[in-house]
This record gives sequence, C-alpha cells and structure tokens, in this order.
Amino acid sequence: MSRLVEITDLILRDAHQSLLATRMATEDMVGACPDLDQAGYWSLECWGGATYDSCIRFLNEDPWERLRTFRRLMPNSRLQMLLRGQNLLGYRHYADEVVDRFCERSAANGIDVFRIFDALNDIRNMERAIAAVKKAGKHAQGTVCYTISPVHTVEAFVELARQLQARGCDSICIKDMAALLKPQPAYDIVKGIKKACGAKMPVHVHTHATTGVTLVALQKAIEAGADIVDTAVSSLCLGSGHNPTESLVEMLEGQPYHSRLDLDRIDKVRRHFDQVTPRYEAFMSAYQTVDTRIFKSQIPGGMISNMESQLREQGAGDKLEQVLEEVPRVRQAAGYPPLVTPSSQIVGTQAVFNVLMGPYKAITSEFADLMLGYYGATAAEKDPDVIQKAQASSRKEPITCRPADLLNPEWNVLRSEALELKGCNGSDEDVLTYAMFPTAAPKFFSERAQGPRSVARPAGQAPVSTQPATVAQAREHTGITEPVRYLVTLGDRSHKITVEPM
Amino acid sequence: MSRLVEITDLILRDAHQSLLATRMATEDMVGACPDLDQAGYWSLECWGGATYDSCIRFLNEDPWERLRTFRRLMPNSRLQMLLRGQNLLGYRHYADEVVDRFCERSAANGIDVFRIFDALNDIRNMERAIAAVKKAGKHAQGTVCYTISPVHTVEAFVELARQLQARGCDSICIKDMAALLKPQPAYDIVKGIKKACGAKMPVHVHTHATTGVTLVALQKAIEAGADIVDTAVSSLCLGSGHNPTESLVEMLEGQPYHSRLDLDRIDKVRRHFDQVTPRYEAFMSAYQTVDTRIFKSQIPGGMISNMESQLREQGAGDKLEQVLEEVPRVRQAAGYPPLVTPSSQIVGTQAVFNVLMGPYKAITSEFADLMLGYYGATAAEKDPDVIQKAQASSRKEPITCRPADLLNPEWNVLRSEALELKGCNGSDEDVLTYAMFPTAAPKFFSERAQGPRSVARPAGQAPVSTQPATVAQAREHTGITEPVRYLVTLGDRSHKITVEPM
Repeated sequence: MSRLVEITDLILRDAHQSLLATRMATEDMVGACPDLDQAGYWSLECWGGATYDSCIRFLNEDPWERLRTFRRLMPNSRLQMLLRGQNLLGYRHYADEVVDRFCERSAANGIDVFRIFDALNDIRNMERAIAAVKKAGKHAQGTVCYTISPVHTVEAFVELARQLQARGCDSICIKDMAALLKPQPAYDIVKGIKKACGAKMPVHVHTHATTGVTLVALQKAIEAGADIVDTAVSSLCLGSGHNPTESLVEMLEGQPYHSRLDLDRIDKVRRHFDQVTPRYEAFMSAYQTVDTRIFKSQIPGGMISNMESQLREQGAGDKLEQVLEEVPRVRQAAGYPPLVTPSSQIVGTQAVFNVLMGPYKAITSEFADLMLGYYGATAAEKDPDVIQKAQASSRKEPITCRPADLLNPEWNVLRSEALELKGCNGSDEDVLTYAMFPTAAPKFFSERAQGPRSVARPAGQAPVSTQPATVAQAREHTGITEPVRYLVTLGDRSHKITVEPM
Repeated sequence: MSRLVEITDLILRDAHQSLLATRMATEDMVGACPDLDQAGYWSLECWGGATYDSCIRFLNEDPWERLRTFRRLMPNSRLQMLLRGQNLLGYRHYADEVVDRFCERSAANGIDVFRIFDALNDIRNMERAIAAVKKAGKHAQGTVCYTISPVHTVEAFVELARQLQARGCDSICIKDMAALLKPQPAYDIVKGIKKACGAKMPVHVHTHATTGVTLVALQKAIEAGADIVDTAVSSLCLGSGHNPTESLVEMLEGQPYHSRLDLDRIDKVRRHFDQVTPRYEAFMSAYQTVDTRIFKSQIPGGMISNMESQLREQGAGDKLEQVLEEVPRVRQAAGYPPLVTPSSQIVGTQAVFNVLMGPYKAITSEFADLMLGYYGATAAEKDPDVIQKAQASSRKEPITCRPADLLNPEWNVLRSEALELKGCNGSDEDVLTYAMFPTAAPKFFSERAQGPRSVARPAGQAPVSTQPATVAQAREHTGITEPVRYLVTLGDRSHKITVEPM
C-alpha cells in the first residue's frame, strides 16, 4: 500500500530569497506559473517578508499586485505565505487589530495557507495570527522552529505542536531554516507529533540544504508519517537553498510512498528558471555547496559572514574564532533562542561586542530587549546576571506578559500617516505596506506609477563585446583597439577573459 | 547497539576526476595526506585509469612515483585503486600475463585494495585480475556496475555478487557511476547480497551525486547492512562528483550507526582543498548542480554533452532529441550494457550514426565489436538482425569465449618495444605505462626528466591588479591609467569587474 506524499514548491519565495537575495521580479516568474499550477503541488509558497520588502525596496513592484497576479495565474493551486506571527512581515510586534487586518487582506488577495512562526517559538506571538487566519476561513499552519540546544528536546517540540493544535492550527510545520535537522530527530519529531496530535494532523517539513543531510531527513520524516515536504525545482536549489523537487520525487520510486507531481511539467518549470537565474548572478549566494561547519558552531553560514565583516570593520578580523566560541555562551545566557532572523543577528552582534569589549561591557538595545522579554519568552531560563546588566544598560524593566499586550491600538494612526504620503492610494493594503516598512514605503508610493524595475541583467552566451553601453564606456576610458587578455580573479575563482572593441 | 560504518574517501581520485577533469597534480595533494592518513578512513582511493593517463599526458608525472608518494605519506592507510578488469587501466583487453604483472607491481608499489570492474559486468573479464590480486596477497574487491534495464533485476545483481564471491573476492562493491541508484533498490540489493553471500561479506557502496538522491540511497544501503560507503570531502563534492564525507558522518548521528572519522582532521583536509581547487577552475565540470533528467533518458550527463558536440560538428544540432530517443533502442539491441566508459561512448556514437544515416546504415567498428562479443557478454540477448549487420560491416565473426582467450602472450613484445623508447628506464612499471598508453608513453618517457608540470593557475583573493605579468601586458596594449568597469559575461554568468593599473 502506497501513501501519498504531498509537496510544496518554494521556487517563488524561499528559493530565490535564499539563493538570489530575493531579487527575482514578478515578470521572471509568470512564465512558469501555468505549469506550476498544473503540476500537482499541495501548495506553492510565493509570498513573505523578504519578497514584500524586496518588491517595494528594490523592484518598484506592489507586493499585493504580485500576489493578485499569482492568484490569477494559478487558479487551481493553494498559495502559501510565511508570516512572522505578531511581527507580520515587519521587524516589530504589531497591535492585534493590525494583525487581524493583515490576515484578512492577505486572504482576500489570494493567500490560502498561512505558515505562522515566531523566532523564539513563543506561542503567544503566534496565537492572534492563528485566530485571524481561521476567522478569514483560511488554512493556519502552526510552526515549530527547529534548533539544537540542551532544552530543545523532541518532547519540547512535540509539546509546542500540541499547543499549536489546541490554538486551532490546521497543520504543523517543522521549520529547519538552518539545515540542522538530521535524519533521526526528523523521524522522532514527526513520530512524536503524529502520536501527540493524532495521525490526521498534517505534518509539513521545511528544510534547507546547506549541510547536505536534509534530503535524508525528509526521507526519514516521510517514513515517520510526514504528509507534506518542501522542495524547490532543481534550477534554483541546494547550497543555502533547498532540496531539489525532482530528486524528492525520484527518491520515492519503489518505496511505499508516491507523489502526484507531473515531472514533465516540472521539467518545463526547470527550463524556465534555468533561463532566468543567470540574469541574477550578481545577487547569487556564495553558499552554493555543502557546509557542515554549522553543526559544530551552531551558527548559520550567513551569520558567520556577517560577523566576519563586522569584525573586519572594527579592525579585529583575527578575532573570528573567539567570536564563534562566544556565540554559544551568549545563546545560553539568552535562554537558547533558535538562531534565525532576528535572533541570529542579535546574538551574533552581542557576541562580537563581548569579544571586543569584554563580556556584556556594552549591550545592544536589541539584546537588552531579548534578555528582558520584549521579543517573547525563550525555551530556557536566562542568566540573571546578564538580565540585570541588560536592565541597567537599557533602563527598561523585564516583562513576562505577551509583548503585544503592551501595545495600544495603532491602525488609525498608521492609516492617517500613510494617507499623508504622496502616491498612497488609500487602500488598507497601502496602509499595511506603510505599517511594515515605514522607511521604504514613502519612496515606493511616490514612484509606484513608474512601474516595475527589474534588477536582472542580460545573460546568455553573449561575450563582453555585445554589451554596447559598457563597451563604449570602456573604449572611452581606454582607447582599446585590439583584443586584450586578462586573468580575472573573482573571489576565489580565476577566469581567462578576452576583451575586445566593437 | 551501534554498528560501525566505514568510509572510503574519493578526494584523491574520483572526486577530481569527476569535477576537475583529473587534472590535480600530486603537489596539490601531498599537503592533505597526513590528515587523510590519520582521519580514520577504511581506505583512500587514490589511483586509477584516468589519473594514470592524466599524469603522463598532461602533468609530466610518473604515476608510479605518485603512488609511492602516497604510500610514503599515508603509512597507516589502505590505498585503493580502480581497475578495469582485463583492460587494466587501458582501453583494450590485455593478455593474462600482463594482468598478472600489473597487479603484482601495483601491490609492490603500494596498492592494498583493488576495486575490479568490467563495463559489461562480464565476470570473465574480471576473474584473472581477481586471481592476480589474491596471489599478490592484497584485497580483491569484486564490482557490480549498477544500471537500470528490464534485465537488471535485484536478483541479477545479487547473482553476480555471488559469482564474485565464488571467485575469491574479499568484498563486493556496488558501483553507481551514473547516480542512478535510488534508495529502495540500494536497500534491496545490499540486503540481497548480504543474504546470498553471508552477513560477513563486506558490501561497499559507491555512488555519484548527480541526481541528488544518492545520499538517501547510502542511508538505505546502510540500513540494509552496507559496511563501507564512498564519499568525498566537501570542498570537492556534489554535481557529477560525490556525496560529501562530512554530511555522511553527521547524517548518522542519533542513528544506530556510527563512523570512526575524526571531523577535525577532515576539516583540515577540507580547508586544504578549498585552497587548491579554485586553481583548477578552467577544468571544472559544468555539472555542479542536480540533474535528474538522466532518470528519464538513462543517459549520463557527460554523454549528452558529448553527443551534442558530435551532432553540432555534423551540422545536426537540432537532432539531439531524436538521438536521446534512439539511445535506449541501441542499448536494447546491444543487450542492455551499462552505460559507462567505454560502452557509453560506443552506444552514444552509434545512436548518432543511426539518426543521421538511418538505423545501422553505418556501424562503428567499436559497436560491431560490442555486438559480436569482443567486449564480453551482455546481460540480455542482442538483436540478431543487428548482429548480422555488424558481422557484414566488420567482416568479423561473433565470439562467445572470454575475449582475452584470443590473445597471444605479449609481455616480451611490449617490453622490447618499450625499451626502444628514449627515456624508458627499463622497469616493469615503464613497460606497463607503454602497454596501457602506447601513444602518450613515448613523449612522457622522453620528457620525464624535466619533472612535473602542474596545469593549476594562480587563484585566491588577489584582484586582477596583483597579477603583475598580466597587468603589464594589458597596460602595454591599452594604456589604462584609471579603473575601468566592465560587465563580463562568461558562459551564462555575468560579473561586474573593475580593472585598474598598478
């Protein structure tokens, strides 16, 4: 007897967020939508904080218009988004009425499945969004952020899943944003959730590929009963991205599991993005291969490179090893938060400060907020000495309530501020754009009428000499009249290049 | 109870053969040898046909000297080589006395483990080498080449393993050179071999990573009882290469299996090759990501690109799809040979001929030999019509005997021919070099005294301006006096480049 395994493709959101700095324009996605719509996916993830931000900040695209485009082009598919709980798509907690309004508008514009998470796994930061999604008649997926620490046991993850079920979640996601999920814990957690929440509670597993082990984790999760897994079409996969969709499908052959994906359709999607992605080369992640160091340091690859540049700016490039050893100590002091945006940056920056200036001699305001409960509760007790120092440094009191309980209603204020901006169209959607990205929204509203501005660049077989503007410019500077050969070193790769005038 | 899983690292042979066109020089490997030697591997694969060929053809290195260097630098390790059965490291069958001599000399120079395979899985092409290795007191590993066809059942692979055991093999290798091995057949074949050959017969699994599913296949092979698996350190892995060693080790955590590898040592090896590999960028395989099309076409990626260039040379670049459809028909007519060197080239070229000129209107002499049994027996019956055409075209009779039975003793002839070459040192090793690579050996012998010639090129963080010769040359041509920006397109990737004088 074969069991159906469903698949969510990440190509429209997390794949290009992880591998192309979220820069892909809607115009480069629409061509793949009809095939994606017909391929037999459980859902298509296509919207989230970084894509929203990138739309208004870099692409001059209205993210709501992008969503409506997807809805129109994929009428047969569940459209899925990633929602940061009470933070929505922004970087602070919002008042409940803003959460309600956002979920209602997202549902009305086309989202079917809301994957709701909190960086600290604090369910109080997720429960309002869950309720709002349910009220809008849509699928609320509660999320367990996976991490490794002495307190993050299988039992603790299962207990969080049980609480999410009690809040009304329609499914549970295990979110492995750092590719830390190994096969055995994947099996144990899925088994545990199925036992605690009932076999009928759908379990959805999200992994990244960075460490090279997570396709095996998906295999074991499926053996344990996982219903849905996340992958990305192979033209934009691996590295800090995800496991390839086609490989997942092929992997199941002969096993007592099957997908319902149409590989011919997927191959068309693959070819589409094979054409598109080279044009975003300038934004391509350096993490294209396997990196298992994260298992040792517990520090995501992207975070290490951030810390390296922070240190170099301070003239302390030689202190990286010390910082890598400091991070686990800071994480312990802070109650073992999962290292994911924004906790990874907060913990990493404090570790840098500790190494450069001595332990907690200087405390960032974000780290103080984390220590004092303003981001929510952590899984373990925090270090009382460090709490005291955070209190002294920030002159704030520790809190234990749900952080959003401290907020006043703010919709009307946000609305009137948004309406004053040139180009704001007065819709709730525009107010939400302003609410979540108050610094980027004004410029976007004022320039929106100019239409999308893709940051993709021409690619293909064309040599340098077919880039007319560039060549003209080069000739103006150099007077090159015949081919010149260079050995060009980019990062750690060398290329033989011939440059010639036209 | 935890079971030990042993690991063979491929970094010194198959990894750079698959990813860097076998171009890595010995000088770029020696730095990693002490750590490889101490890391806790079952064996280190470090010698084979392509590395031997590359040494004398491109690197002006004596391959026997490379082997002795490895032996000296890795005294605690089993050194492993890949041997093409009766073909040794060359492209034809050799008389038995040459096989004996080669195995004896390889053992004397340092090889401990001989992985012996035949492209057609014809055991008669392997048995002399097996006997010679046993006589030399070394480990003879019999190989089952994995492929997919109606006749390549689990039972057929298990039966071949049983026959290899009967010939005295010390272990059985399942060799998945095309990354076709999915998890379920991996499990079934290992289980079957363990049942047929006894639990004590070591089973060693070799896979490539191309299709993205084979780390999962290794997981299932281990569950079925596989004793040893092949991987490569992560600085030279994935794509047409192999699964990363570090990921395999991490994958086992928490499962009832463990390795004995020292990950700190492996990390030093990783850093070593992270420095080395960029200098071989010019030889780097284009197959660096996942490609699952091979499951559909059954044609390895490298073979598709070969066929594409053959077709383009004939002005028939538009006929690729027809050729891809012809290949399975040709393979069927030839009795379903596994597609691996040389059978992949033989079948692929005949498919191109069939499409361009009509089915079997022209038959290559190699394809005729394949049809008439001169490469050995295939797993299935061949098409009698095509046999007849091959017979007519080549004016040769079909044979059913072991091909090497037709050969006369040849050692003395080879020896006297080799001794006439300028620079030949008269050793058996030099005679073997001449025997296996008669066209490349003369030049190598005559130039050997000049010493190794690495084809690696400078790399690293250095910008263009620190490549003095190149910059001087460029300035001479261009008179560049200030930084110039270019958009440079290499293949399908664009880079922003700044060139400045020094």
